[in-house]
Amino acid sequence: MPWSSMQLYDLIRRKRDKGRLSAEEIEALVSAYAAGKVPDYQMAAMLMAIFLRGMSTEETAALTLATMNSGDVFDLSSIPGPKVDKHSTGGVGDKVSLILAPLVAACGVKVPMVSGRSLGHTGGTLDKLESIPGFRTDLTFQQFKKLVASPGVAMMGQTKRMCPADKRLYALRDVTATVDSIPLIAASIMSKKLAEGIDGLVLDVKTGRGAFMSRTAQARKLARKMIAIGAQLGKKVVALVTDMSEPLGEAVGNAVEVVEAIEALKGRWRADLEEVTLALGDEMLIMAGLAKNPEQARRLLLRALSQGLGLEKFRQMVRAQGGDSKVVDDYGLLPRPTCRVEVRAELAGFVKKIDALQVGLLGVRLGVGRQNLDSKIDHSAGFLFKKKVGDKVAKADVVAEVLGSDAAKVREVAGLLPAFISIGSGAPRGNGMVIARLAGPRIRRRA
Amino acid sequence: MPWSSMQLYDLIRRKRDKGRLSAEEIEALVSAYAAGKVPDYQMAAMLMAIFLRGMSTEETAALTLATMNSGDVFDLSSIPGPKVDKHSTGGVGDKVSLILAPLVAACGVKVPMVSGRSLGHTGGTLDKLESIPGFRTDLTFQQFKKLVASPGVAMMGQTKRMCPADKRLYALRDVTATVDSIPLIAASIMSKKLAEGIDGLVLDVKTGRGAFMSRTAQARKLARKMIAIGAQLGKKVVALVTDMSEPLGEAVGNAVEVVEAIEALKGRWRADLEEVTLALGDEMLIMAGLAKNPEQARRLLLRALSQGLGLEKFRQMVRAQGGDSKVVDDYGLLPRPTCRVEVRAELAGFVKKIDALQVGLLGVRLGVGRQNLDSKIDHSAGFLFKKKVGDKVAKADVVAEVLGSDAAKVREVAGLLPAFISIGSGAPRGNGMVIARLAGPRIRRRA
Repeated sequence: MPWSSMQLYDLIRRKRDKGRLSAEEIEALVSAYAAGKVPDYQMAAMLMAIFLRGMSTEETAALTLATMNSGDVFDLSSIPGPKVDKHSTGGVGDKVSLILAPLVAACGVKVPMVSGRSLGHTGGTLDKLESIPGFRTDLTFQQFKKLVASPGVAMMGQTKRMCPADKRLYALRDVTATVDSIPLIAASIMSKKLAEGIDGLVLDVKTGRGAFMSRTAQARKLARKMIAIGAQLGKKVVALVTDMSEPLGEAVGNAVEVVEAIEALKGRWRADLEEVTLALGDEMLIMAGLAKNPEQARRLLLRALSQGLGLEKFRQMVRAQGGDSKVVDDYGLLPRPTCRVEVRAELAGFVKKIDALQVGLLGVRLGVGRQNLDSKIDHSAGFLFKKKVGDKVAKADVVAEVLGSDAAKVREVAGLLPAFISIGSGAPRGNGMVIARLAGPRIRRRA
Repeated sequence: MPWSSMQLYDLIRRKRDKGRLSAEEIEALVSAYAAGKVPDYQMAAMLMAIFLRGMSTEETAALTLATMNSGDVFDLSSIPGPKVDKHSTGGVGDKVSLILAPLVAACGVKVPMVSGRSLGHTGGTLDKLESIPGFRTDLTFQQFKKLVASPGVAMMGQTKRMCPADKRLYALRDVTATVDSIPLIAASIMSKKLAEGIDGLVLDVKTGRGAFMSRTAQARKLARKMIAIGAQLGKKVVALVTDMSEPLGEAVGNAVEVVEAIEALKGRWRADLEEVTLALGDEMLIMAGLAKNPEQARRLLLRALSQGLGLEKFRQMVRAQGGDSKVVDDYGLLPRPTCRVEVRAELAGFVKKIDALQVGLLGVRLGVGRQNLDSKIDHSAGFLFKKKVGDKVAKADVVAEVLGSDAAKVREVAGLLPAFISIGSGAPRGNGMVIARLAGPRIRRRA
């Protein structure tokens, strides 16, 4: 399709006036933009028009496909068996992938996982993995493919040649206040995930203070959009909307989360982390056709866990990606904080709230994530929450520990942390971690 | 105010979410943009957000002021007497300025008029004036000021140093589908007009097929917005919403419109042109304090006309701006078309409609206006409408003449023109040319 400034003008105007763009138009727009043939100012106007006018499912699916096709798309069809991945929209203390991927791989699912780095207040799976000495996330496609075949799980970072249109679009959205758009987020996530060459995808759409979609209604909308894209493009997609009000599990950081993940694979984990991880695992096993229903899936997962098969798969994955698998037995091989400050309860009662967003932001100060592109990560830094929401505390009980290699920062953050932990009287009622399971188009109730 | 990408992001986000920008923020944004310190892609996102979310009167006034202050602002305060200008939103056959400015100047109003060139299907006062041999529109401020003092009227083009922010913004709006926004149009017009150093402004807001705001409701909205800006900035503004369904008067072109204007100043004009011109003149005289009411104003205008004072002022203006004032008595000194083709009625009846938009577009083909920046204008080209809407025609009566120096184009346009002139039975009821007079904020009726 030839391309001119005038045609582009017409597309912007149509979207501005609530019109629809055809799949061919979106394909032409995205490929021209990826090729540098669309000026940023025209794309910025288009993005704002999309932000404010929305996109239909067909448009969003076309955007997903066009973005995916702007770069390399992995072909894993030669590997036998179902390829299923899990994607989280990002949270604080979200080490689920580190536990879940080897656990379901141990059950027979092939897990080709292309992960991201920390973004804003949320952590990144790649940053966590890289706290394991020697662990490489910059795999080539051939290496990745080989590992998906055996040991059946691989975790890598996006290559430069995957979804280049998404990288350009995201950079532009980031400076034009057009990030928080459901269709744009959905297309961005789905394009990257579908480029992995998967058959199905289980989504963990986070909601609450520590999530990008803090409101549940928005999280549901995003989940529905991604499911609809999957339906359009012939991929199975199921989404769980899960709670991200307080940090997930005990640890927030990099090395500390690796330790918590290994502990989980050894069968020792916090109830919230266990609930989310196993619920996602149920979905992956069912999607892969390895279980008929959640009960059967759960039995398989628990058996793999109790027999140490998930831990063994983790060990194999670490070794296969160049990491020192002895960390599984000796946490001392991981980066160790030189400073550790305890935060104690100032009064007795129950933990009512731990503000995941603020913990995430304090984490960025500590070096858990990046403040900007040049920031250096402190893999040893982070938090350990000894008490979680609903737990009873006595006065002066240790509620949390703040860890890191920069003593001044650790002390500063430990001083700030108590403001974001609420202790009060009366045990809060426990809500389940899984707020909703969504697996198809929304059914409108009849009046 | 210091400026960062982050602050700009916050402003875009706020406007996106229907928030308001402060006058200081708008001032900082516009001056930074004019200085090349705001990237086009961020401004494009902001413009689309403004397009879709609107701007309050306070915001629009601040945008007007900031745009005006991005460049030179004329100071005419040393010239005694009221400085009042008229501005038209653009039409087809709109030679009103050429008649009105000298006429009201002859009555004692100082008229500092900075005009534009043809844009799209609409004509430009500067292009018309330049069909007068020697006429210069590229005055310096000092020359302009001298002429406003005496003979009391001057017509020039915008200098490069007037409203540079408007020029950059307009160019960006033009490629991002953000032109047709009431607040952006209002601020653009008002910034340029207020930079003239006027005390008051009479607006001729055109509506109908040949106008940019073809719908009257939109034209009224634009008029109200400009009046509100004037109120915010302490300038008197009155608007007449006038009909632009068929071309105004008899001639559409450049030299042909100059001839029609001179004829009008000699007292010979079409009723529609007379009605619009004198109604605007009434407002200018009242605004300038030279008349207490429309009746008194009308008497002054008609006296100046019948005594030939308007014509004399026109002659002085032409002479003062380097033009050959003998054209007033010898139209043969103006560019003359080498080709002239008559368009005749194919049936008897009444003229029901002459499509001003299509006439304007055909005019661009003839060379009345510019197709693009490199197009050369044919000052001799245009149309003469011998019959207008409501006129009775016999079969084979000459309805219009098409003129120009390119015989092939003249013949082509003459062949196309009849499709845009409707002749039918029954005299159409005559509507007045002035659809509304707006002079203050909209009064909301009580339920």
